[in-house]
Amino acid sequence: MRLRDLLGVELPIIQAPMAGSQGSALALAVAGSGALGSLPCALLAPAALGRELETIARASSAPVNVNFFCHQSPEPSPAREAAWRAALTPYYRELELDPEAIPEAPARLPFDDQVADVLEPFRPQVVSFHFGLPSPALVARVKRWGAKVLSSATTVDEARWLAARGVDAIIAQGAEAGGHRAMFLSADVTTQVGTLALVPAIVRAVGDDVPVIAAGGIADARGVAAAIALGAAGVQVGTAYLLAHEATTSAVHRAALQSAAAAHTALTNVFTGRPARGIVNRLLRELGPLSALAPAFPLAASAVLPLRAEAERQGSGDFSPLWSGQNTSGCRAAPARELTEALAAGL
Amino acid sequence: MRLRDLLGVELPIIQAPMAGSQGSALALAVAGSGALGSLPCALLAPAALGRELETIARASSAPVNVNFFCHQSPEPSPAREAAWRAALTPYYRELELDPEAIPEAPARLPFDDQVADVLEPFRPQVVSFHFGLPSPALVARVKRWGAKVLSSATTVDEARWLAARGVDAIIAQGAEAGGHRAMFLSADVTTQVGTLALVPAIVRAVGDDVPVIAAGGIADARGVAAAIALGAAGVQVGTAYLLAHEATTSAVHRAALQSAAAAHTALTNVFTGRPARGIVNRLLRELGPLSALAPAFPLAASAVLPLRAEAERQGSGDFSPLWSGQNTSGCRAAPARELTEALAAGL
Repeated sequence: MRLRDLLGVELPIIQAPMAGSQGSALALAVAGSGALGSLPCALLAPAALGRELETIARASSAPVNVNFFCHQSPEPSPAREAAWRAALTPYYRELELDPEAIPEAPARLPFDDQVADVLEPFRPQVVSFHFGLPSPALVARVKRWGAKVLSSATTVDEARWLAARGVDAIIAQGAEAGGHRAMFLSADVTTQVGTLALVPAIVRAVGDDVPVIAAGGIADARGVAAAIALGAAGVQVGTAYLLAHEATTSAVHRAALQSAAAAHTALTNVFTGRPARGIVNRLLRELGPLSALAPAFPLAASAVLPLRAEAERQGSGDFSPLWSGQNTSGCRAAPARELTEALAAGL
Repeated sequence: MRLRDLLGVELPIIQAPMAGSQGSALALAVAGSGALGSLPCALLAPAALGRELETIARASSAPVNVNFFCHQSPEPSPAREAAWRAALTPYYRELELDPEAIPEAPARLPFDDQVADVLEPFRPQVVSFHFGLPSPALVARVKRWGAKVLSSATTVDEARWLAARGVDAIIAQGAEAGGHRAMFLSADVTTQVGTLALVPAIVRAVGDDVPVIAAGGIADARGVAAAIALGAAGVQVGTAYLLAHEATTSAVHRAALQSAAAAHTALTNVFTGRPARGIVNRLLRELGPLSALAPAFPLAASAVLPLRAEAERQGSGDFSPLWSGQNTSGCRAAPARELTEALAAGL
């Protein structure tokens, strides 16, 4: 089945879910442009998720991809938490914050039956997962609604693993991509491969069974054309939508994306505990890019949040995760529809 | 000027120079296939260089790219050398080698007037450099022969630097590429960008002035087509030629390239002191991938060589630099002509 038919869209282009930088408004605008819009649900508590789904259901019958994290929730380690807070204490002092008064971060809960209960009445047409898949029972439950199930692979092994578990399409996430690496069979970042090498390898391994969607470093018509030349059935694009009018990308993030700093990104775990690609800024440079002190995902995030909030209040992105891929050339402050059209010219 | 005309070849495909894995035989075979063959000269003493150039001149009038390193020769640091040898001593013991009897490694001398004296009578049509460019006087000397000058950029900054110094074409070396990173304006490997992001960025920055050749992760017709879609004027391909009949790739290296191990490469400095991409093997894993102990390029190499020689004598590649890009799908034991034809199908 062609990817367009599988996903129920006109264009084989997926707007990558970007938690913290967008909600239903961008998803709907992209859906209206003929591509597949995505709702990142990783940071949404059940009530907020329900509201976003209501908003989407009222506005459109076009398919929207609802995206969830499906990591294992870690056991908190008091020793590691203490070491992490100690590492951050000088920054708390500098910003005159109380290191003893760290609030809980918004829960990044993995997909579970409670979330599925919220989702079920909306009968989502496309559900995607990051960091592998939830339990077979949960995947089966989602499929019973008629939803197509997508997940991301960063290696050929991960693609084979996903194909064997019945996903409907695989997103081949090359190392250029912004935000969290989907990696779930290895924690070794040297296993991560560039899009130009990854896409044909995954197409060769599973392409006869499952459509492969290229992601990472694709920001304009040329990148889309290159992805198709590599054998991809479609593309997933995130960074190029970060400045969209309908995105909720923060002011410091928007400024960084439009600055010379955007030329230098790195994989870092200092914001959440898992490797994710962001623009190199102060916290990333001084404690990272990869720190052995950072607590397991998502626990590293709590202690960083007060620093981020206070710094952003002062107009600084020094402590903010400035997620970005390695190609920011497609970033424009424009309606999402125009951004989709620019990409679709490469089809 | 079109790249074919600039380089004097039928096909805009360059066989990447691969020191240690090939000499004039591969360069000539590729030249005979319509692409640009390359002679890696970094490990050749002047007399050996002269012999290789004689061999080429006798066999063909087709252009061949002669490739040189142009790093700064480092000041040896006795302390660092001692620390490096201490780190390697357990391996010397295991292989029953004398750590006090380490011979000098073959000199990796940067391009200089003495080398230019050897080169000059042969009037090479294409001269390429790695790690930037030699002095302006040396570049001018090479250009006076009528040679076209190429060098590699791993960032937009490096591409601008090279364009400002008058190179005739720029090789955009994406992070997927095997062997030594060309990086010369930064030592920070997080600055290295995937081919899919790098090529369009360099084309945008300097493409109106200088043709851009895509390198890294390109191994078959699809990869070539993708590179052209990205705006490249041509491609440089290395890994796909490593198993060519005319290559001198060692037995352990050939075996690794054809094994499952080839799926996992990393940037490492443990073999030479500079980051280079190779298949993950024992020395890379145990002391690297990036070791602060490794002496500056090329000094790290000397102390590894006896281990490599003894291990290879026993049929093991544990201590060999198994240079490889992230895409080994094009590796086939075949005449170079067939490998070129497979790539050219993507043009």
